[in-house]
Amino acid sequence: MSDLPNRVDIQEEGPREGFQFEKGPIPTNRKIELIDALSETGLKEIQVGSFVNPKRVPGWADVDDVIAGIRKTDGIRYTALWLNERGLERALATDGLFLKGSITTSASETFMKLNQNRGYADNVKVQHNQVALYKSHGVSYFRGSMMAAFGCNFEGDVPVSKVIEQTESILGIAAENDVALDVLSLADTMAWATPQSIKRVVGSVRDKWPDLRITLHLHDTRGLGVANAYAGLEMGVDSFDASVAGLGGCPFAGHKGAAGNVCTEDLAFMCEEMGIDTGIDVDRLLDAARLAEDVVGHDLPGAVKWGGSLDVLRRKLN
Amino acid sequence: MSDLPNRVDIQEEGPREGFQFEKGPIPTNRKIELIDALSETGLKEIQVGSFVNPKRVPGWADVDDVIAGIRKTDGIRYTALWLNERGLERALATDGLFLKGSITTSASETFMKLNQNRGYADNVKVQHNQVALYKSHGVSYFRGSMMAAFGCNFEGDVPVSKVIEQTESILGIAAENDVALDVLSLADTMAWATPQSIKRVVGSVRDKWPDLRITLHLHDTRGLGVANAYAGLEMGVDSFDASVAGLGGCPFAGHKGAAGNVCTEDLAFMCEEMGIDTGIDVDRLLDAARLAEDVVGHDLPGAVKWGGSLDVLRRKLN
Repeated sequence: MSDLPNRVDIQEEGPREGFQFEKGPIPTNRKIELIDALSETGLKEIQVGSFVNPKRVPGWADVDDVIAGIRKTDGIRYTALWLNERGLERALATDGLFLKGSITTSASETFMKLNQNRGYADNVKVQHNQVALYKSHGVSYFRGSMMAAFGCNFEGDVPVSKVIEQTESILGIAAENDVALDVLSLADTMAWATPQSIKRVVGSVRDKWPDLRITLHLHDTRGLGVANAYAGLEMGVDSFDASVAGLGGCPFAGHKGAAGNVCTEDLAFMCEEMGIDTGIDVDRLLDAARLAEDVVGHDLPGAVKWGGSLDVLRRKLN
Repeated sequence: MSDLPNRVDIQEEGPREGFQFEKGPIPTNRKIELIDALSETGLKEIQVGSFVNPKRVPGWADVDDVIAGIRKTDGIRYTALWLNERGLERALATDGLFLKGSITTSASETFMKLNQNRGYADNVKVQHNQVALYKSHGVSYFRGSMMAAFGCNFEGDVPVSKVIEQTESILGIAAENDVALDVLSLADTMAWATPQSIKRVVGSVRDKWPDLRITLHLHDTRGLGVANAYAGLEMGVDSFDASVAGLGGCPFAGHKGAAGNVCTEDLAFMCEEMGIDTGIDVDRLLDAARLAEDVVGHDLPGAVKWGGSLDVLRRKLN
């Protein structure tokens, strides 16, 4: 029927995204409660915090306490985000984290200039320095990360040739620093992707680098997140970022409906219903999604937590 | 890349579904206002009311006034729903409606028994009588309609063989009455479908009846509506039912998150972004979706009305 993978890895980013995005304040113990619930769902990777300036991101002022307080489960990678050397140093000083080195670019230079205040030439230098810094700290896992890979609010449609060019740039930076790239993340940062463009872009990268693992980071701002993930699955993509209950939001849209990542439990539900193993207990994840709503104190986007899983119905019938 | 059609027809069912589902009361003039707005979007078919018992469905007690009051536009089919002979007679007595005869069944006999209080044998008799009745009234358009084609809360997973069997039943009833079936609607009434099962079921029906036009009626209760529609598009399906802003709800789930049909503007947005002509002006449809929220007085599910269309961004960039 297609190239659907047998097994998919979902990286949970809900806590990091959500606690940063929500107006809060959310008590530290409730953040820990949600992460601990997620650790019981079968997820194998959870991004549990952000080492950022507490004045700019007050929602993560308690990142140290949250990470110290969670119950760490064997077999789960607990990851974190940082944006500069100070953040990396804090992450390095934290017990129990799996550290990923990032080599970051954007398929839209305009977006990079607006978002990070630098163009491609400067960015290549910055990324070289970052990789050297990661290496000096013993970080051995590297993730290439390309923002705006499917379109940009400030450049419009992004040609596939730009994604190829920037993938070459990421791979070049890795090679020059003698590190292997473990995965390339293609991010639909501003929700321009359609199932068709997912297939076109992923297919083009695959054609050129058949052995490079691709992960998709899909925003659901225009309701196509799950459909775009399905198109990725059809291209054999076996790795996705997602947020439980759709926690988090898109910082580029100023209104309340601005959705963040595709919802973890909806994505996991679709995969499991199609016989694709995610390692996730969907019903437990639905409980965690409902807990996420309780923690933030309002409704969140995910659908299956309302509709219910089919396994619950099947069990009643048997 | 696939069998994506060049052109897709979307049947708008939002007004009929929504005004039936909402607790209301919604003033007649506001119902008319929404339908008139939908008539300006490029939609070619709009279901504008339901001829049902006003004691059971108070939201459609004003169906005659609504249909008399809307501004009928050339080239648009205004359709309506009825559930029995009395309803059909009311529809026949109404000016300006396009009447569709239905030949209805369910891929789950259990669901049919619960929902319509009859089994397959009785239903065949009822459908024969209905077709004769339609013919006697000069109705010449026939739509086969199969509920629960992808699964059932009361039977569980539905085998494809059941869909084939019930399609044969519908075609047999049409043939015996010497009428042609214009379209077969496969309904995911209780939201059991996945993109994979859409492909499996549509593919099996296609294999056996390559010339039979299929329309998909997809509920979004578990967040897979748009992904399921995309899978249908990949199988060449070029006809979908949808509800503006996701108006309406699933009567089989008792909670507020129970979604109804896939959202018209999200589906149209995806199609247009992939170069599939829907005849719809997505930005006008987004205005109608926002109007729908104003008319019902609360948020509705659709995403693009929050995220905004990409054409608006593209125009700003040019």
